[in-house]
Amino acid sequence: MTVPLKDFSRLCLHTVTTKPWSLDEAVRHYRSAGIKGITVWREALEGRDAAEAGRMIRDHGLSIVSLCRGGFFPALGAKDRARAVEENLRCIDQAAALGAPMIVLVCGAVPGQSLAKSRRQIIDGIAEILPHAAAAGVKLGIEPLHPMYAADRSAVNTISQARVICDTLKSPWLGVVVDVYHVWWDDWLKHELVACGQEQRLFAFHISDWKTPDDILNDRALMGEGCIPLRQIRRWAETAGFDGFIEVEIFSRRHWARDQKTFVKEIKSTYLQYV
Amino acid sequence: MTVPLKDFSRLCLHTVTTKPWSLDEAVRHYRSAGIKGITVWREALEGRDAAEAGRMIRDHGLSIVSLCRGGFFPALGAKDRARAVEENLRCIDQAAALGAPMIVLVCGAVPGQSLAKSRRQIIDGIAEILPHAAAAGVKLGIEPLHPMYAADRSAVNTISQARVICDTLKSPWLGVVVDVYHVWWDDWLKHELVACGQEQRLFAFHISDWKTPDDILNDRALMGEGCIPLRQIRRWAETAGFDGFIEVEIFSRRHWARDQKTFVKEIKSTYLQYV
Repeated sequence: MTVPLKDFSRLCLHTVTTKPWSLDEAVRHYRSAGIKGITVWREALEGRDAAEAGRMIRDHGLSIVSLCRGGFFPALGAKDRARAVEENLRCIDQAAALGAPMIVLVCGAVPGQSLAKSRRQIIDGIAEILPHAAAAGVKLGIEPLHPMYAADRSAVNTISQARVICDTLKSPWLGVVVDVYHVWWDDWLKHELVACGQEQRLFAFHISDWKTPDDILNDRALMGEGCIPLRQIRRWAETAGFDGFIEVEIFSRRHWARDQKTFVKEIKSTYLQYV
Repeated sequence: MTVPLKDFSRLCLHTVTTKPWSLDEAVRHYRSAGIKGITVWREALEGRDAAEAGRMIRDHGLSIVSLCRGGFFPALGAKDRARAVEENLRCIDQAAALGAPMIVLVCGAVPGQSLAKSRRQIIDGIAEILPHAAAAGVKLGIEPLHPMYAADRSAVNTISQARVICDTLKSPWLGVVVDVYHVWWDDWLKHELVACGQEQRLFAFHISDWKTPDDILNDRALMGEGCIPLRQIRRWAETAGFDGFIEVEIFSRRHWARDQKTFVKEIKSTYLQYV
């Protein structure tokens, strides 16, 4: 049996999980709740200086785990693809200013363009921004998305595909972000996690839970509400050598509509109970 | 380039595609539309004698392609699993009476039970009904379902998994049903189709189209409305030796709400244009 987590030293929240809160509110409440890590969504930084926001977060004793999110490389036209690369370069600068060691990449897809073509454009896009990321000391983590997003959000839908991109581009700055919501169904999950670990490519670990969603974007579940074997998957990740933050990333209209302090309390208790 | 289909000799409709029609209406309208194949959903047989329905369908010049659907083997308790096996035996009898050469299996899943356990129960369930199917001359086709249904409708989510079940149970009466809606995103689709063909296991081919759905059950698209490369996938299936019916299976509240004769006309024109 996997030993349950005993404290919150590895717990990280994504700002989007408590979307009703501003960045300042999130940081203040996370700190009083004893949460140690924060992954900042770019939306939460809008209109403010990233370096100043980074200092404010660190002054509150929180570690910045990632900046969410870059990517969205594929597009029908070359101009739009160049614009996506530009946007990702800005995102890298923002991460460096913020003091975030990593950017999560949601790779993108274009309805009506073949998945094979989108995948090639994703590789090209990452290849273009990798030197800048390396120079800035910012890692890039490819997050495979659930196949239900293959048409329009990411043509990278399995850890295996993300590893193939890493194999192609070969850089210590490029790795994989595993979000259980996207990959829990995969027969090869254990194998892929272990392979990622051996390759030193398991950059981040995101959790939430799966109940067959009514709304495929904003209906994720709190740990224990769904059917993902969270503790087992955590064990596999740890077998693969992962000992980093465990990041709670829940998009949920249902939970956003609730009192966010109560929600954070439940995140903490279900984290100990199910993860 | 793949040669477009030139006529409707391989076109089959699932009764559920034109759900507002009774079986009699469907058969009459399919015949006037020059459609040659029909896959009958069990709901359409409710309250009527299967043998008589089969005669009525054949008298109208239609070929019965499949009976939809058996399966749903996993359950928490042994009694419920035994009940599922019973129901599948009845389904086999019904297919034999109807004159349907095959049953499509949607294998089932139980929220809160591990996918591995559900997969074992699926193998056990199919093993129990296979002798009866063989004796009745009814083939069983395992249809992998999109991973978005993994929690509650099918723990078999890739063609690869379906083939593993076939390898385990080794019977000429057991094969795979490929529905593009469920597997179009799979990086291994071409490889898996070819392997299925070589193994003489590609029993059926279902089409529709994918637009990222608002409603994951009843929001499938008509051919050409979405992003599935239908003609390319048909070519792969034919390379794999498949020359059977091409079955249109569309669950769509949007299309069900329309005039069904107009809808069937559009099915025919998009079939020639996109498949």
